[in-house]
Amino acid sequence: MGENVDNEIIEHHVDEEMEKRRTTSHASSFIGSLTPLEREGHSSTQSSHRLLAYSDALISIIATVMILPVAHTKVEDTEELKESLQALLSTKIAVYLMTFLIVSVAWAAHIRLFQVIERIDDCLALLNLACMMLITFLPYTFSLMATFPEHILGILLFCACVMVIGLIQSVIVLYGFSRPFLLNDQIQISENQVFYKHHILKVIMRVPIMCFFASILSFIFFQLSYVILAVVIFLPYITESLKWCRSKAIGQVEETPDSVLFYTYRPNEPLTKERVEAFSDGVYAIVATLLILDICEDNVPTPSVVQKKYGGSLIAALQDYGPEYLAYFGSFATVGLLWFVHHSLFLHVTKTTRFMGLLNTLSLAFVGGLPLAYTLTHEFPRNSRNELEAIQISCVIIFFAGVFQLAIWVAALFNERETLHPYVRYGGRDHAFMFAKLALYPCVALGAFFVTCVLSRFSASIFHLMQVTVPFAFLLLRLLVRGGLALLRLVFCPDRSDQRSTLEDEEDGARMPFNALVT
Amino acid sequence: MGENVDNEIIEHHVDEEMEKRRTTSHASSFIGSLTPLEREGHSSTQSSHRLLAYSDALISIIATVMILPVAHTKVEDTEELKESLQALLSTKIAVYLMTFLIVSVAWAAHIRLFQVIERIDDCLALLNLACMMLITFLPYTFSLMATFPEHILGILLFCACVMVIGLIQSVIVLYGFSRPFLLNDQIQISENQVFYKHHILKVIMRVPIMCFFASILSFIFFQLSYVILAVVIFLPYITESLKWCRSKAIGQVEETPDSVLFYTYRPNEPLTKERVEAFSDGVYAIVATLLILDICEDNVPTPSVVQKKYGGSLIAALQDYGPEYLAYFGSFATVGLLWFVHHSLFLHVTKTTRFMGLLNTLSLAFVGGLPLAYTLTHEFPRNSRNELEAIQISCVIIFFAGVFQLAIWVAALFNERETLHPYVRYGGRDHAFMFAKLALYPCVALGAFFVTCVLSRFSASIFHLMQVTVPFAFLLLRLLVRGGLALLRLVFCPDRSDQRSTLEDEEDGARMPFNALVT
Repeated sequence: MGENVDNEIIEHHVDEEMEKRRTTSHASSFIGSLTPLEREGHSSTQSSHRLLAYSDALISIIATVMILPVAHTKVEDTEELKESLQALLSTKIAVYLMTFLIVSVAWAAHIRLFQVIERIDDCLALLNLACMMLITFLPYTFSLMATFPEHILGILLFCACVMVIGLIQSVIVLYGFSRPFLLNDQIQISENQVFYKHHILKVIMRVPIMCFFASILSFIFFQLSYVILAVVIFLPYITESLKWCRSKAIGQVEETPDSVLFYTYRPNEPLTKERVEAFSDGVYAIVATLLILDICEDNVPTPSVVQKKYGGSLIAALQDYGPEYLAYFGSFATVGLLWFVHHSLFLHVTKTTRFMGLLNTLSLAFVGGLPLAYTLTHEFPRNSRNELEAIQISCVIIFFAGVFQLAIWVAALFNERETLHPYVRYGGRDHAFMFAKLALYPCVALGAFFVTCVLSRFSASIFHLMQVTVPFAFLLLRLLVRGGLALLRLVFCPDRSDQRSTLEDEEDGARMPFNALVT
Repeated sequence: MGENVDNEIIEHHVDEEMEKRRTTSHASSFIGSLTPLEREGHSSTQSSHRLLAYSDALISIIATVMILPVAHTKVEDTEELKESLQALLSTKIAVYLMTFLIVSVAWAAHIRLFQVIERIDDCLALLNLACMMLITFLPYTFSLMATFPEHILGILLFCACVMVIGLIQSVIVLYGFSRPFLLNDQIQISENQVFYKHHILKVIMRVPIMCFFASILSFIFFQLSYVILAVVIFLPYITESLKWCRSKAIGQVEETPDSVLFYTYRPNEPLTKERVEAFSDGVYAIVATLLILDICEDNVPTPSVVQKKYGGSLIAALQDYGPEYLAYFGSFATVGLLWFVHHSLFLHVTKTTRFMGLLNTLSLAFVGGLPLAYTLTHEFPRNSRNELEAIQISCVIIFFAGVFQLAIWVAALFNERETLHPYVRYGGRDHAFMFAKLALYPCVALGAFFVTCVLSRFSASIFHLMQVTVPFAFLLLRLLVRGGLALLRLVFCPDRSDQRSTLEDEEDGARMPFNALVT
């Protein structure tokens, strides 16, 4: 059974690379067929890979930035956590989540754009940098809007940013279509190039034009502007999702297949897998290091403070910061392991859809809250009511971050032929293992939550035990899953256990139905 | 002339991918030749690409973290900038630069390790995460050492971290050599596997063992520990650099070619190009967004403050933050354009050496200082002495960041057959253009520096003019270079201008010697 495994996994990657190579060489032959006149002066065509990686890094930083004002809100020991949390929840957390969503919408638009334009030159690289500069400014305008909802300045700034971003994207599209060798191969060879251009421009320009009206309306009746903005950003997704659901329910055939390749807002529209990975890596990396940034800046005592306050004992001074270190190591480990699960999952994902991207974004938004939860966990005195609630909040956040990762896989399973590697498909040989990997954190978090409800006196010990156990659980997971499956088999079908063990060395064993065990 | 250009650039990339494919398929055929017993239970071999990208993201964040304490030191308007800067320079900037260097040494060690181990499994991924956790803690221990140089706690913590990192790396190497299909192909097919293992373990374990002695010595005579630490970290580089210089000077033949493939510390040791790019992207992305992080956190006024201080006028309140916005847009544009230059350079680099990596690190260390310089630039009243000095410091930082980028190219030119794409080699068709791109920022910064010395009254205007002009200069650079070359040709060899213009459409025109124009 094990013989073909590595070969296949690696051949799978080889296939991907061959695929890339094939399309690239196809493009180069296409370019070769152009007349010299068409290509005069554009000799610096480049692969867009690194530009996109840099854009992903910038956008992922910006998406997670708005957690900082939340994290730096000081919670007093004397107040009840609930009240202060309610104050937090009311504005800052809402702002954080909304910003995360808006930035990820901008990111999705950026992906869409560079799925059409696959090669770049210097001019496009500079235009993209200008676009990035404005995208990174969006969270600030949004938090102005949230802090001063009745003041039109926030709306105007936000609309201005969105309008300029839209204009730059239109310029990029026009520039790309004027130099067709920069475009996606499908569009390059298509005869409907003009149709594509108009369709894409129409979709892109819709947003700035609506924002223009919203900004004018804000002078007259500002509440309406907010409604328009919400409609602009979310309507295409909502209508297309509804259409998709209806078509799934009724089984309607999709019309005009040629027009639905780009800019469709369908849940099954493809999303470049590398960019989803790069964006997620950026978010995980920032979130993992958020606490060490704070520690490096705030928790190095000055010599004079140590002399005065602690009688010259550096160790005593650092002991005061103990909870911060614990919070750092705890959050780094949890975020790292969640990244590890994400990494394992996407290793077996062959195609990402927009709906999977949405679930991924939701998972990442919860991951962004982890450092905050961990800081709270270690900040309160032992066995206080605050500590218990902080620990439970951490468990809830971990649970949702994990559950949305699991949801990505479940969503992928619905269309597994296109989106998943055979091993993790329904009935595949790593299906049970992948399920165990994805389910470990949600289960542990849920378990810890309920156990702390019952044994509230030992909540801190339970939480620490969980943190220490989980990494080892991941290390031993393959063994545990094998043992678990063997046990299940023994319990449910003891008479067939002998047959099974002989079958396992053959290809048939690889398709051991996990679903049969669950039912 | 232009016909083959795109083809060649793209074919160059196709070649790279074919190369990758060849090695991968070679590896898979090698794995196929292993007996099933050797591979039992290790069926989850994965490409290490994403793990390394995530590690690069983490390390680049950590490398730039220590600029935050520097950036957040408040400079009072009343003091002279020089004095406060001297106070800053004395500790914080030194700590920042040293941390940057130490983290990049740790990063280089990480690259070395994963040049040997090319494929990973779950166990290695988890070990690597543990290693990352300790690396991200290094800056904190280092800043403790810097703040309390006479206290041994800092040394002990630093040594403990380095020792544990060394141990984890040794475990990774042992694990890798016990499962040879995880290793580099060269080592996999080599008969000297045991020799390699011992050589690599010896090099890796040297550091923790020396740190162990340093930590014991710190109890007796702590000054000596610092000397040992400095020796441990920098000696291999210094001795190997000296050896290399000597061999270049005398022309000595290198001995034992089999042992020098890995872990040699030679300046021409290869450095994975993708990782240099990923690390640089991370640093540029963090640095570009450092100021917007501050703005989002600190510069959203609360409604009560606006009501009390500004009589309810939000615009008046935001006008107070004007300099911060200017600083943000200025630093984002400068960092973005420096990234653009870096991107253009590395597009034509085919192999990165350790010496080029060092120059890159130095350039990045200066880039990290840019947001700080820009904040200073816009913080002082117009035409004050402070403002002039802040502007000049910004110019100096931009100059050095650009000059080290130029130095990477110059270093690459010394060994151009191995390290550069033909177009940008000495005499290649994009040689002059690449030179202009790399030289633009240093020249402009130097020019602005001297002009502000003379016309100190207009320093701010000159600086703003520079910021606005440079992006357009990059947009039009190709035209400018063409015009400049035509002009030079007209001046120096006017009689040959007709011949030249006819030649230019042929392949010969592509090899137009730029050096001939300079001399």
